[in-house]
Amino acid sequence: MVGGGQGAFIGAVHRAAAALDGQIELVAGAFSSDAARSKESGAALHLAPERCYASYAELFAAEAKLPLGDRIDFVSIVTPNFLHFPVAKAALGYGFHVICDKPMTFNLAEARELAAIVKKSGLLFGLTHNYTGYPLVKEARARIRSGQLGAIRKVVVEYPQGWLASKLESSGQKQADWRTDPKRAGASCCMGDIGTHAENLAEYITGLQIETLCADLSTFIPGRPLDDDGNVLLRFASASGEPPAKGLLHASQISVGEENGLNIRVYGEKGGLRWRQEEPNTLELLWPDRPAERVRTGVGPLSPEAAHASRLPAGHPEGFLEAFANLYKNFAATLRARLDGTAPTAFDLDFPGVEDGVRGMAFIETVVASSASQEKWVKFPH
Amino acid sequence: MVGGGQGAFIGAVHRAAAALDGQIELVAGAFSSDAARSKESGAALHLAPERCYASYAELFAAEAKLPLGDRIDFVSIVTPNFLHFPVAKAALGYGFHVICDKPMTFNLAEARELAAIVKKSGLLFGLTHNYTGYPLVKEARARIRSGQLGAIRKVVVEYPQGWLASKLESSGQKQADWRTDPKRAGASCCMGDIGTHAENLAEYITGLQIETLCADLSTFIPGRPLDDDGNVLLRFASASGEPPAKGLLHASQISVGEENGLNIRVYGEKGGLRWRQEEPNTLELLWPDRPAERVRTGVGPLSPEAAHASRLPAGHPEGFLEAFANLYKNFAATLRARLDGTAPTAFDLDFPGVEDGVRGMAFIETVVASSASQEKWVKFPH
Amino acid sequence: MVGGGQGAFIGAVHRAAAALDGQIELVAGAFSSDAARSKESGAALHLAPERCYASYAELFAAEAKLPLGDRIDFVSIVTPNFLHFPVAKAALGYGFHVICDKPMTFNLAEARELAAIVKKSGLLFGLTHNYTGYPLVKEARARIRSGQLGAIRKVVVEYPQGWLASKLESSGQKQADWRTDPKRAGASCCMGDIGTHAENLAEYITGLQIETLCADLSTFIPGRPLDDDGNVLLRFASASGEPPAKGLLHASQISVGEENGLNIRVYGEKGGLRWRQEEPNTLELLWPDRPAERVRTGVGPLSPEAAHASRLPAGHPEGFLEAFANLYKNFAATLRARLDGTAPTAFDLDFPGVEDGVRGMAFIETVVASSASQEKWVKFPH
Amino acid sequence: MVGGGQGAFIGAVHRAAAALDGQIELVAGAFSSDAARSKESGAALHLAPERCYASYAELFAAEAKLPLGDRIDFVSIVTPNFLHFPVAKAALGYGFHVICDKPMTFNLAEARELAAIVKKSGLLFGLTHNYTGYPLVKEARARIRSGQLGAIRKVVVEYPQGWLASKLESSGQKQADWRTDPKRAGASCCMGDIGTHAENLAEYITGLQIETLCADLSTFIPGRPLDDDGNVLLRFASASGEPPAKGLLHASQISVGEENGLNIRVYGEKGGLRWRQEEPNTLELLWPDRPAERVRTGVGPLSPEAAHASRLPAGHPEGFLEAFANLYKNFAATLRARLDGTAPTAFDLDFPGVEDGVRGMAFIETVVASSASQEKWVKFPH
Repeated sequence: MVGGGQGAFIGAVHRAAAALDGQIELVAGAFSSDAARSKESGAALHLAPERCYASYAELFAAEAKLPLGDRIDFVSIVTPNFLHFPVAKAALGYGFHVICDKPMTFNLAEARELAAIVKKSGLLFGLTHNYTGYPLVKEARARIRSGQLGAIRKVVVEYPQGWLASKLESSGQKQADWRTDPKRAGASCCMGDIGTHAENLAEYITGLQIETLCADLSTFIPGRPLDDDGNVLLRFASASGEPPAKGLLHASQISVGEENGLNIRVYGEKGGLRWRQEEPNTLELLWPDRPAERVRTGVGPLSPEAAHASRLPAGHPEGFLEAFANLYKNFAATLRARLDGTAPTAFDLDFPGVEDGVRGMAFIETVVASSASQEKWVKFPH
Repeated sequence: MVGGGQGAFIGAVHRAAAALDGQIELVAGAFSSDAARSKESGAALHLAPERCYASYAELFAAEAKLPLGDRIDFVSIVTPNFLHFPVAKAALGYGFHVICDKPMTFNLAEARELAAIVKKSGLLFGLTHNYTGYPLVKEARARIRSGQLGAIRKVVVEYPQGWLASKLESSGQKQADWRTDPKRAGASCCMGDIGTHAENLAEYITGLQIETLCADLSTFIPGRPLDDDGNVLLRFASASGEPPAKGLLHASQISVGEENGLNIRVYGEKGGLRWRQEEPNTLELLWPDRPAERVRTGVGPLSPEAAHASRLPAGHPEGFLEAFANLYKNFAATLRARLDGTAPTAFDLDFPGVEDGVRGMAFIETVVASSASQEKWVKFPH
Repeated sequence: MVGGGQGAFIGAVHRAAAALDGQIELVAGAFSSDAARSKESGAALHLAPERCYASYAELFAAEAKLPLGDRIDFVSIVTPNFLHFPVAKAALGYGFHVICDKPMTFNLAEARELAAIVKKSGLLFGLTHNYTGYPLVKEARARIRSGQLGAIRKVVVEYPQGWLASKLESSGQKQADWRTDPKRAGASCCMGDIGTHAENLAEYITGLQIETLCADLSTFIPGRPLDDDGNVLLRFASASGEPPAKGLLHASQISVGEENGLNIRVYGEKGGLRWRQEEPNTLELLWPDRPAERVRTGVGPLSPEAAHASRLPAGHPEGFLEAFANLYKNFAATLRARLDGTAPTAFDLDFPGVEDGVRGMAFIETVVASSASQEKWVKFPH
Repeated sequence: MVGGGQGAFIGAVHRAAAALDGQIELVAGAFSSDAARSKESGAALHLAPERCYASYAELFAAEAKLPLGDRIDFVSIVTPNFLHFPVAKAALGYGFHVICDKPMTFNLAEARELAAIVKKSGLLFGLTHNYTGYPLVKEARARIRSGQLGAIRKVVVEYPQGWLASKLESSGQKQADWRTDPKRAGASCCMGDIGTHAENLAEYITGLQIETLCADLSTFIPGRPLDDDGNVLLRFASASGEPPAKGLLHASQISVGEENGLNIRVYGEKGGLRWRQEEPNTLELLWPDRPAERVRTGVGPLSPEAAHASRLPAGHPEGFLEAFANLYKNFAATLRARLDGTAPTAFDLDFPGVEDGVRGMAFIETVVASSASQEKWVKFPH
C-alpha cells in the first residue's frame, strides 16, 4: 500500500475492504512521505518493520528483489490525487499489478499516458469507483441490459454532500485541505472528487455514454480556488438507433446537511428505477400502471451479478465497505486466475479499470471547460 | 364556474376545494361549451337549472343582471388553457372577481394584457398555483424569510410525472388530448402544465427570482408536437449583495412510474430543507453538524402562516384538496373583507395572483426559447 | 348537527367531510348546550338563525314539524361520548336517520339498546370509524377477501399517540378534559378513543373476529383516572377450519412524539401487507421470494372498492378528510337511494354501522375486564 | 474457530467481522465434524493444513501444546446451539478465551453452569448479541442513560422475519433444518433464534430488566415441533422508584416478506426513540411539541460510545458486518489489554458476556413456560 498512513481516511477503507473476504493480506507499505510516520503506521497494522518503507520508490525496489511468492502481488495506491500517476507508473514499471484510488490521475494527459502504459505492460489495473460495487447497482445494470426498462430516455444522477459548506480547509482538516488545493487535487474539487463517481455510476448502470454536456460549476466559499458545486445537463450517445437519452448530473459539497447522497434515477420506455447510496440495499423498480417493486439485496431471485456481489441474507444491511470490498474481491479473483494460469470469470472481471479512469479524467476536464465556455453544448470527451 | 363539466378533472377539484371550509357556495356555471352538457353537469351538482348557462357569455350577462347579493361574487375559470384569457377578460369586464387555473393564459402577450386589465379593474384575481397552499410550503418560506438558512446557494426543484410516457393522447384521453395540442395548451406541454408549478414553487419558497436559465426540452414520444420533458439550469438574481444562488429545475411527463413528484431542496449558508408534494406534511430541515429535523404539520410551534393553512391536528394527513382549498379560503377571506369594507389580513392576501401568472407565462416562453437557442444563458423573462 | 360548536375539533371535521362531495348541505344544528353559543356557532357557518337551536330536543322537535323536503334528512352526532346514546335515541325517535361519532355509546348496555332501537326503526345508522374510509384500507380488505394473502396468521395493529404524555387535562385543554373524565368518556380513555379504531380496522381489513384477548392497560400519568396506554394479545376466531390467527393490538396516548400513528400489518400464508394511516396512500404488499409491491392510490388497477373511494389521480395526496368524507358519501348515497326508492349499491352500503358500534363497546369493556383480571385469556365479547 | 465450515452462514460472518479491523487473524479451526470437510474449509481460507483439525477436542489439545504466542489466543464458537456448551467448556478448560454465538447454550441449566465456569476461570467470554454493536444502538443507550428521555414508560421491540413461512426444513435447507429441531436448537426456534436478540436489545438500550411477562407462542407450520412466532407482554422492573415500564415483544419467522426486521421504540416521560436494524444508521428521536430529530451515524456530535463504534464518515452506510465486528473489536481490545497487562477501557469492555447469555436462556425458558401456562403473568427469570 502506498499512502494511507495514520489520520488518512481512504487508506483504512481500502485495508478493511481488502481484508473482508480473507483473500488478501497486507504485508508491506509506504504509508507516508514521512519515513518515521510510515513505520509507525505500519506497526499499528502489525506489519513486519522491515516492510514499512520510507517511500514508494523504496517499497517497489525492495519488494521486487524478494523471491516470487514472498513479494507483494499488487500495489494499492491511496495517496492524494497528484501522486496517483507517478506511483502507478513506478509500480507497473516494476511489474506490480495496481489498484488505484480515483480520480485516476492529476489530469487527462496523465490518464491517457497511464492507459498506454497499462496496456503495454499487460498488468492488471483496478480503479476504485467503489459505488459500482453495490449489489443493487449491478442489479440495476443487469435489468437495463436485459431490456426490462426499454430504451433509456432520462437519467438523473445526483451527488450532494454538505461537508465543505464552510471553509473547512482553513481549519487544517486534512481531507478538505488537499481536495481544495489545485496542486494536489487537480482542475476540480467537487467534480473531481464526487462528480466523477456520478458520471461513472450513470454510465455503468445505463451502459450509455455521455456525448455532450453543458456545465455550470460554482465556488460558493469565498477564497476557495476550486469548484464546490456543479450542475450539468447531459446528452447521451444514442444506442442502436434509439432517440438519445438526456439527463442531469449535479454534485455538491455545499449542500448543507447532505451526507453522501449519491443517487440515480433512470427512466426508459417501459420502466424506471431509483437507487440511493445511503440506503443501498433497496432498488425501486417503477412501472407504468402497476405497483412499484422494491427489490432488496438478498430477496428473491436477483441477477447473478447482484447475487455474486452480496454476502448476507435479506435484511442484513451490507454497506459501503462491502461494496468497496467487491472491487477488491473481483480484482483478487482475476489476479488469482492470472497466477493460476486459468481464465477469470465474467464476475471476476467486473471491476473498473484504466479506461474508466481516462473517462473520468475527461469528464473533469470537459465540465471545467464547459463551465468556462459560452458555448451551450460541449463534446465529451472534450 | 366556467368549465369543469362532467369528465373534467380540475373542475371537480376546484369545487371540492371551494366547498371545504363552508365559506363558498357554487350557485351558477357554464360547465361546457355544449349547452345540454352544461345543464346536465349543473343538475348533478344540484344547481338551479336556470343558473346552468350555455356559455360563459350568457353566464356573465345573466348574473350581472341579478341584484347584488343574489348574483355570483366571483368566477372560477377551469377551462383548457386557451380559454383562460377571453373568459377572464369577460368576467372582469362584467365586474366579477376571478379565480383562474394555471397557466394563466395562452401566451405571454395575453398574460401581460390580462395583468393590465386586472390592475385597471381593481378586482381580485387569484391563480391556482395550488402547491403553494400546503402548510409546510409556507413553513419553508417562513424559515427562509426569517434567515434560518442563511443566504440561499442552491435550489433543486423537480416535477417528474410518468403519465405521458406512452402516446396516451391517441387513445382520446381527454386530459392528454388538450395538453399535447399546441392550439389549446400553448407553446409547451410539460413546461406549461407542470414546469410552471416548479418555477412558482421555487420562487415562492426562496423569495428569489430566476435571472437567467439554460434549458433543454425534449419530446420523447414520436409524433407529439410539444415537449414532454425538460431540464433547466437556473441562476437566480442576487439578493442583497449575496453571491447569486444557482439551481436546477426539471420536469417530466415521461418519467415512467413517477406520479406527481413535485419536490424541492434548498441549501443555504446555514441550513437546508427538503419538501416533497407526495408526502406534504413533512418538511425536513438540514443542519451542519447536528441532526436533521422533521417538521410536521400540526406538531409544535409552526410559523403563523403554516398554522393558518392547516386544519387538523398532528398525524391527520392533509392533502392536495386541503392545499388547494387554502387558496380559495384566502381568496374568499380577502373578498369578504372587500365586501365588508375591512382590511384583509396578510394571511388572507397569501394567494397567487396575476403577477405570478405573468411570470409563469414568461417562464414557458423563456425555456422554449432557450431550448431552441445555441446561446448558453438566456435572460428570464426573455 | 348536534355538538361541534366553536372550539370543538370533530364537528369541523364532520362538516368538511360532509361538504366535500357537494351532496350534503348543513342546514340546522344544536351546536352547544349553551344556547347563545349554539347560535353563534351556527352564524359563523352561515346557517339561518332560526335553525340554530338551543338543544337537540328543540332541534328534533322543530325540524320534525317542517314539511318533508324542507326538514333535515339526517342528524350528525358529534358530542362527547356520554351524549351519543340519548341524542341518537331521540333522533331515531323522531324518524331521523343518524350518523354518530365513535365510540358509539357510553357503555355496552347502551350500545345493545341502541342496536335494538335502530333495528326496530328501520332507519339508517352510520358510525364514523373513519379510518376504514381510506381507499387503500379498502384495497387491503379486497386483497385479503380475494385470497391473495392466503389464510391469515398474524395481525399487528398499533395506534400510538403522544399528546397525553403530560397531564394536558389540567391545563383545561378541552379535548383532553372530557376524554380523561370517566363521567363523559366512559370506562376507558385510550382504548375507548383510539383502541376501538384499531380493533375496528383489524376486523374490517382481515374479515376476522377477535375471539379471546389478554390485555394490560396502564395509566402513566399520576392522578389520571382512566387508562392512557394499553397492550393486548389477540386470538382470532378461525375462519373455515384454518388454524386461528393471532395478533397484537396496542394503543397509547403517552408515546411521546407519536402523532396519530394508526397502522396495521397482516401476514398470511402467501403474502403480507402493511398500511400506515400517516402515509395513507401507500399500501405495501409483501411476498415470499419476490420484491415487495408498493400499491398507491390512483396507480394501476385497484379493486373497485378502492377506486370508488378515491377522488384524485396518482400522486395527489388524499388525506384524513377525504377518508372521512367517504363515510358520508356512502351514507348519503344509501340515503338518497332510500329517498329515491332505489336499491343502494354495495359501494353505497360500505360504511360502519350499529353492529360495529356494539362490537367497539364490547371491545372496551372486554379489555378493561381483562386488564383487571388474573385470568390469561378473556372471551370477546366479554 | 469451531464450526463454520463451507455452507454455514454464521461462520463466514464471524470471520469477516474478526478480519475487518486488522487486529485478529484466523490461524486454526475445526470447521466441521467431518475431518475432511474441516480440512477443505480451512484450505479455502488459506490456513496451514496442520492447523485445520478434525475436531474441537483435537484443536484445543494441539494448540495448547504450542508455545505461547504461537498458539491461538481465543476460540470462536459458531456451531449449532447444542454444541456451544461442550465446546466452550472445553476451550475454557484449556485456558482459551472464548467468543460464542448465541443463544449461549442448549438450556438454562447449561447457561448457569457455563457462567460459573467462566467466573472461576477468570477468562474472557464474549457472546455475539451482535445487534448491540451498531453505533446508533449505543447512541440510543447513551441518550437514555443520560436521562434525555426521562423515566421510560413503554418499550416496543419487534423481530419479524418471514423465511420460515413455509416448511423450508423439509427441503433440507441447512439453516432451517437445525433451527427447527429441538435436539439441536433447544426449547424454542423463533424465540431462541431471534426473540433473545429482541430481549437483549431492549434491556441493553433501556438499561431496564424485564420482571414479568405473558407469552403466546405459536407454531403455524403443521408438523414443525417448535414455535415459529411469539407475542409477549412485558413488565419491567422499576428503576429507582419510577412507575414500572411496560412493553411488548414479538418475534416471528412466518411474517411473510419481512426480512430481518428487528426494531425498537422506546417512550419516556420526556422523549422517545425509534431504531430499525434494516436501516441502522438512522436513529429517530421524538420530542413533545417540537420536530423529531434524525440522528445519523457520522453526523454531528454523537456519544463517545457511538463514535467509537463507527468507522466511516456520514452517509457511508455501515451494516451488519461492521456492527458484528464491533463486538470482535472490543473483545480483541480487552484481550490485548489483558495480554499487555493494562486496563481495558470502558469502550473495550462493551461487549455482551456470559451474564447476557444466562439471561437470554432464561428468557427462552420463561416464554416457553408462560405460553404453556394459564397464569397471566410469569416471573422472569422463571
